[in-house]
Amino acid sequence: MKRKICVVITARASYARIKTVLEAIKCHSELELQLVIGASALLERYGPVIDVIRKDGFEPDAVVYMVVEGENLVTTAKSTGIGVIELATIFDNLKPEIVISVADRYETIATAIAASYLNIPLAHVQGGEVTGSIDEKVRHAVTKLSNFHFVANRKAAERVIRMGEDENLVFVTGCPSIDLAARIMSENHDGYDPFEKYTGTGSKFDPKLGYLVVLQHPVTTEYEHSLFQIQETLAAIVSLAYPTFWFWPNVDAGSDYVSKGIRQFREAHNVPFLHFFKNLSPEDFLRLLVNSKCLIGNSSVGIRETSYLGVPVVNIGNRQIGRDRGTNVTDVGYDRNAIIKAVREKIDNCFYPSSNLYGDGHAGERIADLLCKVPLIIDKRITY
Amino acid sequence: MKRKICVVITARASYARIKTVLEAIKCHSELELQLVIGASALLERYGPVIDVIRKDGFEPDAVVYMVVEGENLVTTAKSTGIGVIELATIFDNLKPEIVISVADRYETIATAIAASYLNIPLAHVQGGEVTGSIDEKVRHAVTKLSNFHFVANRKAAERVIRMGEDENLVFVTGCPSIDLAARIMSENHDGYDPFEKYTGTGSKFDPKLGYLVVLQHPVTTEYEHSLFQIQETLAAIVSLAYPTFWFWPNVDAGSDYVSKGIRQFREAHNVPFLHFFKNLSPEDFLRLLVNSKCLIGNSSVGIRETSYLGVPVVNIGNRQIGRDRGTNVTDVGYDRNAIIKAVREKIDNCFYPSSNLYGDGHAGERIADLLCKVPLIIDKRITY
Amino acid sequence: MKRKICVVITARASYARIKTVLEAIKCHSELELQLVIGASALLERYGPVIDVIRKDGFEPDAVVYMVVEGENLVTTAKSTGIGVIELATIFDNLKPEIVISVADRYETIATAIAASYLNIPLAHVQGGEVTGSIDEKVRHAVTKLSNFHFVANRKAAERVIRMGEDENLVFVTGCPSIDLAARIMSENHDGYDPFEKYTGTGSKFDPKLGYLVVLQHPVTTEYEHSLFQIQETLAAIVSLAYPTFWFWPNVDAGSDYVSKGIRQFREAHNVPFLHFFKNLSPEDFLRLLVNSKCLIGNSSVGIRETSYLGVPVVNIGNRQIGRDRGTNVTDVGYDRNAIIKAVREKIDNCFYPSSNLYGDGHAGERIADLLCKVPLIIDKRITY
Amino acid sequence: MKRKICVVITARASYARIKTVLEAIKCHSELELQLVIGASALLERYGPVIDVIRKDGFEPDAVVYMVVEGENLVTTAKSTGIGVIELATIFDNLKPEIVISVADRYETIATAIAASYLNIPLAHVQGGEVTGSIDEKVRHAVTKLSNFHFVANRKAAERVIRMGEDENLVFVTGCPSIDLAARIMSENHDGYDPFEKYTGTGSKFDPKLGYLVVLQHPVTTEYEHSLFQIQETLAAIVSLAYPTFWFWPNVDAGSDYVSKGIRQFREAHNVPFLHFFKNLSPEDFLRLLVNSKCLIGNSSVGIRETSYLGVPVVNIGNRQIGRDRGTNVTDVGYDRNAIIKAVREKIDNCFYPSSNLYGDGHAGERIADLLCKVPLIIDKRITY
Repeated sequence: MKRKICVVITARASYARIKTVLEAIKCHSELELQLVIGASALLERYGPVIDVIRKDGFEPDAVVYMVVEGENLVTTAKSTGIGVIELATIFDNLKPEIVISVADRYETIATAIAASYLNIPLAHVQGGEVTGSIDEKVRHAVTKLSNFHFVANRKAAERVIRMGEDENLVFVTGCPSIDLAARIMSENHDGYDPFEKYTGTGSKFDPKLGYLVVLQHPVTTEYEHSLFQIQETLAAIVSLAYPTFWFWPNVDAGSDYVSKGIRQFREAHNVPFLHFFKNLSPEDFLRLLVNSKCLIGNSSVGIRETSYLGVPVVNIGNRQIGRDRGTNVTDVGYDRNAIIKAVREKIDNCFYPSSNLYGDGHAGERIADLLCKVPLIIDKRITY
Repeated sequence: MKRKICVVITARASYARIKTVLEAIKCHSELELQLVIGASALLERYGPVIDVIRKDGFEPDAVVYMVVEGENLVTTAKSTGIGVIELATIFDNLKPEIVISVADRYETIATAIAASYLNIPLAHVQGGEVTGSIDEKVRHAVTKLSNFHFVANRKAAERVIRMGEDENLVFVTGCPSIDLAARIMSENHDGYDPFEKYTGTGSKFDPKLGYLVVLQHPVTTEYEHSLFQIQETLAAIVSLAYPTFWFWPNVDAGSDYVSKGIRQFREAHNVPFLHFFKNLSPEDFLRLLVNSKCLIGNSSVGIRETSYLGVPVVNIGNRQIGRDRGTNVTDVGYDRNAIIKAVREKIDNCFYPSSNLYGDGHAGERIADLLCKVPLIIDKRITY
Repeated sequence: MKRKICVVITARASYARIKTVLEAIKCHSELELQLVIGASALLERYGPVIDVIRKDGFEPDAVVYMVVEGENLVTTAKSTGIGVIELATIFDNLKPEIVISVADRYETIATAIAASYLNIPLAHVQGGEVTGSIDEKVRHAVTKLSNFHFVANRKAAERVIRMGEDENLVFVTGCPSIDLAARIMSENHDGYDPFEKYTGTGSKFDPKLGYLVVLQHPVTTEYEHSLFQIQETLAAIVSLAYPTFWFWPNVDAGSDYVSKGIRQFREAHNVPFLHFFKNLSPEDFLRLLVNSKCLIGNSSVGIRETSYLGVPVVNIGNRQIGRDRGTNVTDVGYDRNAIIKAVREKIDNCFYPSSNLYGDGHAGERIADLLCKVPLIIDKRITY
Repeated sequence: MKRKICVVITARASYARIKTVLEAIKCHSELELQLVIGASALLERYGPVIDVIRKDGFEPDAVVYMVVEGENLVTTAKSTGIGVIELATIFDNLKPEIVISVADRYETIATAIAASYLNIPLAHVQGGEVTGSIDEKVRHAVTKLSNFHFVANRKAAERVIRMGEDENLVFVTGCPSIDLAARIMSENHDGYDPFEKYTGTGSKFDPKLGYLVVLQHPVTTEYEHSLFQIQETLAAIVSLAYPTFWFWPNVDAGSDYVSKGIRQFREAHNVPFLHFFKNLSPEDFLRLLVNSKCLIGNSSVGIRETSYLGVPVVNIGNRQIGRDRGTNVTDVGYDRNAIIKAVREKIDNCFYPSSNLYGDGHAGERIADLLCKVPLIIDKRITY
């Protein structure tokens, strides 16, 4: 009898962070993959991640719409509630032996709660890291609901253990997102041109001449400032006047403000060096990154994958505050001049060495091996 | 402008644990109480706690049905989901400045999630304690979602701080449940007769001649064993043949098994010394306890209030495992003979001193004072 | 390719009304049965109908908890909402070609709405009948959502057609509930003793000496009067002092009042001739009925099955107002004296002939045959 | 004591259809308005109608997010379910004496079900009309749930009565949407220029030189054809090469396809005569219409308001099939050539007389007067 491992994927970022685990589970002779796809991973307007997942050869066992439209604080809470209800029914039907929950989003805690109340052992990926926003609360709450912890590095493991988790069930596997980064690094990725495969909107330019990448999400705990925050970044990009690929934000409280800022900007300005994408495959996104002059914004990609890729990063604001970071990252506030200054320095600075801070590229296999071996327990007790 | 403090009460036990806080908030010149009553606190079949609350002079600002019937693992998860959805709407309307969540139940985490995603500062009562069952996971997860912690004793405070909470926001107030116990201790409670006010079902007897009290809940992580577990206790009570007040369990996964066990037993046996109650007011329940020979079961009352009351307790199984306890508690397994032996010893043992392990009777005022003073922050970061 | 027919069963009564259709679909070479069981059919406290269904050889394809506890007006509405959400997901997975919805309950309209918005052709059983209570609104609303109508008799068909339904899609099949009645009539049912198989609570007596049966539900549109209404019937039964089998009501707004009335009565009176049942199998219930002196209450069974069985009925109040009835039915108000008088007359009156008013016992086969043949359309238009 | 009348507004179109009723209730000395705003009326991406409503001087008593994102069949069903749950809680708090539900959308039936199960008398506006799509099923189902019917014309009244409704509770008031049209007709609306107040996207042109208006929704019962259907209209508009204002569709199953078709088209073509709007105020939309050469699409506005305004209409496909229409409407299929031909004829045809087919401009006052007088009943029974 194979162990049934259920993975819930709900967003673009979650897939990139767990893809090599899916592959390793699928290949493993003693594991059976149960795949649930839901939330924004299904939605046209975020670039449907489910299409990418299917192209990669994974067929979902269940599909679940759970996003209440509105992209504000109330609808995020409500989406969490619907997620709990629906995932309870799904887990009750699929009867997995372990559920995997990834990172720190509202779908992550919905998954964790449904699994916990159904007495299903829960494994968490990306515990023990530190950030800002509501994510910080949710990540550690999920740690306390989880039975097994697959963490990125020793520091994360120490935090999880200090929170009272059993050290025998905390495993430093590296983050699976780095596995993909390692793959891209090992291939010939020079001269990657996203226009060959993706459309997007906005101006076209020659990526071989150098470009920036922007990915900036709302910070839900600074919800009302989301519009101002994105406007500063937009102003900086206009001043920089450098070819730029801009990615639309996640579905989160405040995304509507961010999107509104971008749309207002697009209506007011006709910028010849700005192109917008909704979604690239995880690998193509990394190919785009590794060839870029600088990543700007507040995505965790700017802390984790870029540390391995050695890509310069200008990290804006509080979203990634506290997360362990490499020398490639410069932190700035929501201030157009600070952003401009930092990006200019990065454009001039050509190279950062690859760092293993978030993993060495073998997290997927390690996690799959551990999923075979961990005891199927649900009971736990704080260690002090 | 008074600070609006929203308290969500969802069960018999939650009310007893927070009542003196409600009183202190109501009396406080700088605080405004917003009261939400939901879940089993509304339900006839658990003895509607809302009637008791109203009799005590509190009028709810909102009432919300959220229990999906079934009393099993799936319906508990679903009830949590509905709780999140409904409480999000309610908090969005009431716009409290602080939300208080009590203990470790599924409604507790539903409250915590709704408040967190709505960017409302969250205060938690009863954090840092250790138990078995799903409660253990949920209690610490709620700690990680909370901004302020009102804990029972120094040990609990230490655990909360070791989990990475800011020590400036962890307050040893004592548990408000002890406030009520202290009130009862200070009054003349001798010869309390519940038959004067409550009906219940089963045999009647003279409480002045001595009696036992039983309160045993299902352990959700041992869900399938619930029927067996209650049968052992029932068998012990039959053998003991001592006047006994038995309380029906909470609404939880497994409650149906417990109730079934009790019903089957009642149909099979005609026991002349057994009386069943659904619900007494918190104070009357304590009056009954303080005059009893022994409390049997696995309620947290058997660890906390009884330590102050000095009532002998036979605690059964894993539900309270790890919780700091006084000398009044004897732990036994799910074994009728062990239960009989332990109870006999307790009946013979007449007295335990009152202990301040869970508070000194002034938690309510302390918490109200702190609710005025704590900074209204939502952002937090693990301290290591 | 067999046509996939999805039937949703949610209550004791719904199963009795559709069982022979399930059998006929299961046996049919061109049909595939998809069975969904939910709501009170899963709940211990109503006597879990799912056990009876499984014993009859039907295995559910999906099971869904959807009852919000409270048994009042608000929780009925909420249960409907949860039913719509959950059934949408289930139908989306099962992808039936026709969905069957039975009668006029809140689960019936939840089923109808989920199927309609999913563009699945909808068949309705028991359309075109007339009653009181909220059922009357819901039944005709479901007719307007349905594509195919399997009705009990010519009068019902005429009403459905007059409401603007296509007469080519209205089929007088008889009601499947009569199929079971016909089976019982054709067997030797004399001297049926329910005590051989069922426990229940209350007094025991010899059923061979004659007995009454009571089945009285709350009338949701007269919600607040539910307690008074049941008290009148209880008082009548006490005065009659005749052996009586009493069945607990459905889960509906007001059931809590009815149950409360019964419980208060049981605590106050010790009646030696009254026995309570939660649930018998559909066939055993009919065996009990056919040997009874009189059925008392407001169940539709007292109008439909009894007309075929020739059992005397005293129908109380407005719940069945307007429904076509046989000569076996005497209508009375909520008045203990009227009830007593009417029942005494019935006890003395020994016999009514069997009537085909609601069917001839072959509805199941007819419906299965039609389910093969009806065009799979979802579009419809009022005929005038 | 004023009668409390609760109106639920959930979409752009619903507001236009009920605005004069809101005004009349608000002015009425014996009525109190309770306003609930929800669903797409709150959503940025549909042009938040709530802003328009507030500007008109109406403040909502409750606001409720209920749209599950996805714009497909499953999410429409789920949104209905959430609507029922949330509206049940809201009605339970507001305790209105009558609830008004408008037209035939999923929010309409969610409103109707919540009110019905809460025993609140229900008034329906726009019953008795005939169309295609799921709306046809839903409209008549809502009629059967409603107690009072405020219909547009005699034919509609006849249909409602033939469905078995009490003719004393069916009132020919005219449709309130015509009240607004009458207001616009009575003012000097010549030379209305939307660019003065609204931004939108796409090309600008001089509206004084003549223009077309397009408003085409998906037909949910022809869900999969939505993309093809919109592409035919887009192709026709390109060929016509005439200045055109295009409105984005409602949130409905298939809207994603329609939006996708429009976006693909915009990326592929740079059309100098096409401007896109999300939302105008109801009055401004009518001003735009009355000055247009032709309205193209499948909105009910193209049948009702235009008949009063005397605006030429080319109605495409099945969505409005069966609805009584004036001479101003030409029906065509989903065929670019047929559309082109019909529109060219309309552009040349300068004038249609105003018709009272859907009302005379006094529906609002009539409905408010009736809301005072109708008996507050919930019970009803089919009349045959």
